[in-house]
Amino acid sequence: MQIGLVGGTGKEGSGLAMRWAQAGHSVRIGSRDALRGQERARELSEQAQVTIEGGDHQQAILPSEVVIVCVPYSAHAATFRALRELLVPEQIVVDVTVPLRPPRVGRVHLPPGQSAALEAAEILGDHPRLVAGVHHISAPHLAALEYPINSDILICGDDKQAKQVMISLADDLGARGLDAGVLANSIALEAFTPVLIHMNKVYGARGTGVRITGIDKDI
Amino acid sequence: MQIGLVGGTGKEGSGLAMRWAQAGHSVRIGSRDALRGQERARELSEQAQVTIEGGDHQQAILPSEVVIVCVPYSAHAATFRALRELLVPEQIVVDVTVPLRPPRVGRVHLPPGQSAALEAAEILGDHPRLVAGVHHISAPHLAALEYPINSDILICGDDKQAKQVMISLADDLGARGLDAGVLANSIALEAFTPVLIHMNKVYGARGTGVRITGIDKDI
Repeated sequence: MQIGLVGGTGKEGSGLAMRWAQAGHSVRIGSRDALRGQERARELSEQAQVTIEGGDHQQAILPSEVVIVCVPYSAHAATFRALRELLVPEQIVVDVTVPLRPPRVGRVHLPPGQSAALEAAEILGDHPRLVAGVHHISAPHLAALEYPINSDILICGDDKQAKQVMISLADDLGARGLDAGVLANSIALEAFTPVLIHMNKVYGARGTGVRITGIDKDI
Repeated sequence: MQIGLVGGTGKEGSGLAMRWAQAGHSVRIGSRDALRGQERARELSEQAQVTIEGGDHQQAILPSEVVIVCVPYSAHAATFRALRELLVPEQIVVDVTVPLRPPRVGRVHLPPGQSAALEAAEILGDHPRLVAGVHHISAPHLAALEYPINSDILICGDDKQAKQVMISLADDLGARGLDAGVLANSIALEAFTPVLIHMNKVYGARGTGVRITGIDKDI
């Protein structure tokens, strides 16, 4: 698939870009600064021994069937306002933002709209192909390509076909993608990340994750 | 330990009562109707081949070091208002309520106070030894004593010592009790249950649960 990553120069976006490119997808990363996007794409291409393209946000979005938004929550609303002008209705948009509130990132703080993804839906207006997910894999794990992801990737959304596409893309990361319900369930998925951050600290773990028991699906 | 279960005649309370009694704890179940509490205690004692006592809520609460509240959300506020008059400050109170909103129980709906446990804290006022947990084990699994619980039990609370007591009691259920952070993290724990209910339906599972990856703790 044609995948564009908005905020693809950050840690999480970089890991996703390299893993999807290795799985055979055509990946473009976008930065607010086109030169920085190109430079980071060269670095990641070399690191993962694949071809990743880079440029500004528009260059990452326009040719993509799936647009992944991985920006810090502080840039979330502005990014989606900019996206609104660039998207066409067929494009699937995936919000992976977790609304952490520093410095107490191990404590749940709901954003005003209850979840970042519901706020994104509000900003985008009538764009139905919005899904949310990939909130529980730590960025260092994603970027450590030799590290198999042994936790699940939960995906929610109101458009079943769009959700299914993203579940398959989660499988392609080497994890197990699972259907976590409607977009409103992003409240639970996003809020669970501070719990994992707390457990990282208490149990001295590098990157805790979630695995759902009682489901037969393998990847 | 001396454990009292308020709402102990329901499915979840019954499973907890039998498993803790089998682990050697002294368990009392309470019902609004004392006779019903006694009768149910006799049934459970026979089923689990242990001694479980029963009576009204007051009889379950007064001698107990740990009071577990497992009532439907519709009875939650009234139960905690009644509890306020009966508790002493040393008693640990554990809220296991999940605020589901039928009929769409596979969709996250936050209660007005963001979580049932935060609403309980508001009602109890200055009772610091309130913790929340055990939101993710299905009641039929708890009551099927031959069934080992292969998922984790997440416990949150602001009083570290009270939280640690409940984590040990979770271990005694045959699951792995884990520290999930401050009481505000009950927002995430409670909201995750509709996600599990959704996955039960989508994947035809009897009872999905949560396991945290990346943590070394065994029980």
